[in-house]
Amino acid sequence: MQLTVIGPGLIGGSMALDLRRNGFVRRVVGVESNPVHAAQALEAGLVDQVLPLEEAVANSHLIVVAIPVDHLARVLPMVLDLMHPDQVLMDVGSTKAAALAAVEHHPLRRRFVATHPMAGTEYSGPGAARNNLFEGKCCVLTNVEDSDPDALALVEKLYASLHMHLTYLDAQAHDLHVAYVSHISHIASFALALTVLEKEQDEAQIFELASSGFNSTVRLAKSHPDTWVPIFQQNRDHILDVLDTYINTVSKFRTLLIKNDFSTFHSLIKQANEIKRILDPA
Amino acid sequence: MQLTVIGPGLIGGSMALDLRRNGFVRRVVGVESNPVHAAQALEAGLVDQVLPLEEAVANSHLIVVAIPVDHLARVLPMVLDLMHPDQVLMDVGSTKAAALAAVEHHPLRRRFVATHPMAGTEYSGPGAARNNLFEGKCCVLTNVEDSDPDALALVEKLYASLHMHLTYLDAQAHDLHVAYVSHISHIASFALALTVLEKEQDEAQIFELASSGFNSTVRLAKSHPDTWVPIFQQNRDHILDVLDTYINTVSKFRTLLIKNDFSTFHSLIKQANEIKRILDPA
Repeated sequence: MQLTVIGPGLIGGSMALDLRRNGFVRRVVGVESNPVHAAQALEAGLVDQVLPLEEAVANSHLIVVAIPVDHLARVLPMVLDLMHPDQVLMDVGSTKAAALAAVEHHPLRRRFVATHPMAGTEYSGPGAARNNLFEGKCCVLTNVEDSDPDALALVEKLYASLHMHLTYLDAQAHDLHVAYVSHISHIASFALALTVLEKEQDEAQIFELASSGFNSTVRLAKSHPDTWVPIFQQNRDHILDVLDTYINTVSKFRTLLIKNDFSTFHSLIKQANEIKRILDPA
Repeated sequence: MQLTVIGPGLIGGSMALDLRRNGFVRRVVGVESNPVHAAQALEAGLVDQVLPLEEAVANSHLIVVAIPVDHLARVLPMVLDLMHPDQVLMDVGSTKAAALAAVEHHPLRRRFVATHPMAGTEYSGPGAARNNLFEGKCCVLTNVEDSDPDALALVEKLYASLHMHLTYLDAQAHDLHVAYVSHISHIASFALALTVLEKEQDEAQIFELASSGFNSTVRLAKSHPDTWVPIFQQNRDHILDVLDTYINTVSKFRTLLIKNDFSTFHSLIKQANEIKRILDPA
């Protein structure tokens, strides 16, 4: 099978690497408007060839769109317009409701499968692509009842070949859940980085003391704004809800400090320790 | 040389392991009031023997106090009272001003060296002790001008044997810096864990989607309240300042979302990306 990857960056490029290595596809065609990224994708062997969109879509049975989420609503219908009814289209976007709304009434809607492989790093672009990025991680498939069974089966087989666990959600539930377990982590991390960087202007030595705890908490603050701003934009309403809860919780810690109420502070930390159940399941 | 470790837990126990392995000390005596921890420390080979405080202090040239910071102001003068003027006392506490104030006027003050090895994990107790915990990390020595040169030299040699980088600060500067690069990360992490755990009550599936980004941001939320509440208590004023800045920064992101000002959001993330300079130095 030939695969077309529109946007062979961190996610699309890593997927191309694994799918060729594990024999799921034989050949990968890339679509990449940025000539620097196109050259990198060829150089790194993510794709065999870079072609214009129309040609790239025409020749592949499966087309994966792996571009920043603000372009999905424009690109997905454009690709469906170019497709035959036996081809399959799949996206990998981090937000789902807006992308699904954009193809809702397209005559080939049922050839599209909306997915979100929950894998990534704080890096982006073809240079960030790597083997085994998806291994053992969770992939969400959304609104699968709106896809043809054969299209869904192909995509499920693809993710099984990457050793991902599949979860099925509707787009609204997906967007709400990722606001909690992914998007807010990024905002917390960006804010932490800004807080300390601002202080560094007065206290030049401050980062000499940065420890591994600090590093793990701010790692996500290295993430690229071109990836994340569109996600925050599309998932704005859910993120605002989480952000309100988060600000209230941080503010509660502040109030407890002001009141010197360290006994309640202790109880809250004990409650937070419950996260062990999630991070280190028995 | 014989070493006495008062509190052979994550920090004290890991130090004992490394110092015996690298030949810096020959024998380690532990002081541990919790009988379960005492048995674990013996079992894990962190200490050769557990003794009552008085005996344990009498026989060692060097005494390390590695206990939660709320006990330092009581224990440090107690140990100095038991010491001869040729012995050396050192602590490893995460806050320094309160501990130093407690020994300020002690006749043996100059035999004490105040240190903070910036190493650790989210675990605690003797079971968390491990080899090479300190390797390549930063250790802060505070107010060294108040210690005897030979005492300081011994402690510097000890940390050199653990391959730590030494930094010298006064206690106030130390406590301010750690509020920024360590304590606030923990509060941000505790708050994130609580935010998502609360939501889990309505959305049971939410953690199926937790990704490696989430895991790294909330890892510190596993940290034990008995370690951290005393630190927050002792460093309350500095932490309040950082917390105000942090809450303001998170709130700024919230306001930008409300206003749909994604261009300023993009600029702030670009600024936050500056953290790469610290995390991935060239």
